[in-house]
Amino acid sequence: MAGRYAVIMAGGKGERFWPLSTSKHPKQLLALVGDKPLIAQAADRLQGLIPPENIFVVTNAELVEATQRAVPMLPPENIVGEPMGRDTAAAVACGGALVGARDPQAVFAVLTADQVMGDPEVFAATLRGGMDLAEQHEILVTIGIQPAFPSTGFGYIESGGLFGEAAGVQFKKAVRFVEKPDAGTAQRYLDTGKFFWNSGMFIWSVPTLGKAFAAHCPEMKKLMDELTAYASRGGISQGLEKTYPTLGKISVDYALMEKADNIVMACGTFSWDDVGSWPALESHFPHDADGNTLIGNCQQIDSTNNIVFSRDRMTAVIGVDNLVVVQADGVTLVCPKDRAQDIKKMVMALRAKGTFDDIL
Amino acid sequence: MAGRYAVIMAGGKGERFWPLSTSKHPKQLLALVGDKPLIAQAADRLQGLIPPENIFVVTNAELVEATQRAVPMLPPENIVGEPMGRDTAAAVACGGALVGARDPQAVFAVLTADQVMGDPEVFAATLRGGMDLAEQHEILVTIGIQPAFPSTGFGYIESGGLFGEAAGVQFKKAVRFVEKPDAGTAQRYLDTGKFFWNSGMFIWSVPTLGKAFAAHCPEMKKLMDELTAYASRGGISQGLEKTYPTLGKISVDYALMEKADNIVMACGTFSWDDVGSWPALESHFPHDADGNTLIGNCQQIDSTNNIVFSRDRMTAVIGVDNLVVVQADGVTLVCPKDRAQDIKKMVMALRAKGTFDDIL
Repeated sequence: MAGRYAVIMAGGKGERFWPLSTSKHPKQLLALVGDKPLIAQAADRLQGLIPPENIFVVTNAELVEATQRAVPMLPPENIVGEPMGRDTAAAVACGGALVGARDPQAVFAVLTADQVMGDPEVFAATLRGGMDLAEQHEILVTIGIQPAFPSTGFGYIESGGLFGEAAGVQFKKAVRFVEKPDAGTAQRYLDTGKFFWNSGMFIWSVPTLGKAFAAHCPEMKKLMDELTAYASRGGISQGLEKTYPTLGKISVDYALMEKADNIVMACGTFSWDDVGSWPALESHFPHDADGNTLIGNCQQIDSTNNIVFSRDRMTAVIGVDNLVVVQADGVTLVCPKDRAQDIKKMVMALRAKGTFDDIL
Repeated sequence: MAGRYAVIMAGGKGERFWPLSTSKHPKQLLALVGDKPLIAQAADRLQGLIPPENIFVVTNAELVEATQRAVPMLPPENIVGEPMGRDTAAAVACGGALVGARDPQAVFAVLTADQVMGDPEVFAATLRGGMDLAEQHEILVTIGIQPAFPSTGFGYIESGGLFGEAAGVQFKKAVRFVEKPDAGTAQRYLDTGKFFWNSGMFIWSVPTLGKAFAAHCPEMKKLMDELTAYASRGGISQGLEKTYPTLGKISVDYALMEKADNIVMACGTFSWDDVGSWPALESHFPHDADGNTLIGNCQQIDSTNNIVFSRDRMTAVIGVDNLVVVQADGVTLVCPKDRAQDIKKMVMALRAKGTFDDIL
């Protein structure tokens, strides 16, 4: 049997949880939920499933050292830094090269670094079942998440007929991938029972991934082959430096998932949360009697339904509603919960000014 | 001619500008408006009018050193600390004792430490004229401020017939003192042309003050006499320690101004602002195109009519309206402008918890 590997994708830019998250300390390195950095929780979830030496992390070159400190359970050399972000297809090709250089027949999972999951046994079974099937069949396995509510914040996967069952988990044929829907569409998706959230996690073998790239995105096939050669000589960083600057930015969804016809979707029934923005923390922390989620050193008077995050010094709110108030190391952000998506806009605006690097 | 003195009352507790102001660093020690602490501006206003050695400051015992640093132009021994707050009548008696010990016939002004004033020549003329009259007549002079708008935030003085003119300033008989009115009453006051804002500044001679205390508040007469004896021996602090603990709390308005019938009001036509709370800063700073008053290191997107104060680290707001957002040394406060009066409530609540002394 070929070896089993995992590649944790950790390319977050730290915009959505600003000012707590920054480019030097993005979401996956924060213990936003739980008592370890999210990426350490991602590595912990693989215990008993994949040996640490078979777990790679692909992150930004600037974050390699911080990531090594965040996942001390992994061999430091398994943390690989991309010299620049080139979207997920390139990161997957890089992961495929790292794994393929060790074992050209291996099966590997592509996992996320900054999502929060529960039900670890169910997650482990989903991964184990997916790896079993990816070993036996020439398929691209994607993990769909049974939707808990009609979210407009995720893409969806429409599932078709049953492909098989493995490790107690159902796997269905993937019919199509769709972008984030509007509220009405999301509700219709939920009503059909066929639509699952697109988690961005995948399982496949090195040869099957190579074939899929060759068929649908030759640029990535070429990249994976070149990087595999570098990785075999222990010089993946050199390979990344050489190949990345001229690469286009393509997502793995666009490069493969929307084109391939051998996609199988795992019906993920473990609890899962992308925790995509400050308001998403509400479901992970207790609320006070006025519906406020107060995390850290917070005080409120006559305030309702706010999210206040202030782990170091105090943040006090009086008479406000439905706000996000964050204070991190003295940098403060205030915005209505329904404007949380614009935090990224603020970070962009500050970056454009070029004088706030220390807090971005 | 008897000497001329001033007593600057600096007993602020630093609640209304929290978290910037704290009990150890109250409003009068802050350069809220202008580039010097407000109390230093108060001392500067007396240049050419009263020699520095004749200017006393009455503050809290805990603030003596910080106040000495804030007004280095005054002799350090002229900064006197009350062991505890006993309201304004006691502070006036203390001031009377300090002045009386130097010159029993002196005229002195009781001035505020934390108000913002413009038109320094008009202010100086008002003080000079008031002192001239207080030398010539047995009167209690109070400085009224020509109201700029129907404020509900100040008490008012109703003026009667002309008492006299001095240094180009009109002085009228004071008819009565009234508490902060409601909006309708404030407008009616303004319409009569007879009502002036009660600034809390006074001018009188030591003997006239003594007589007024004797007539209307014997406890304060006794206090002033005792403290004068201590001050004459250079031991006012010892006197305060001995007398204050058992004193009642009485305001000078209640002890004297609402009772005496020899009160004359100066018609103050200099610009004057009590700057009683964060929203009051709006009239002292420029606004951006969206009506925001951004003081310090602030950034906004889609936000209107907010006051954001962040002199050290950055504060960013997105999509909010009519808020006060203050960040001082990492402590953050958020409240609607029309709830600014409740900042005091928050400070009280935090004091009651007893664990936040370092930020109160």
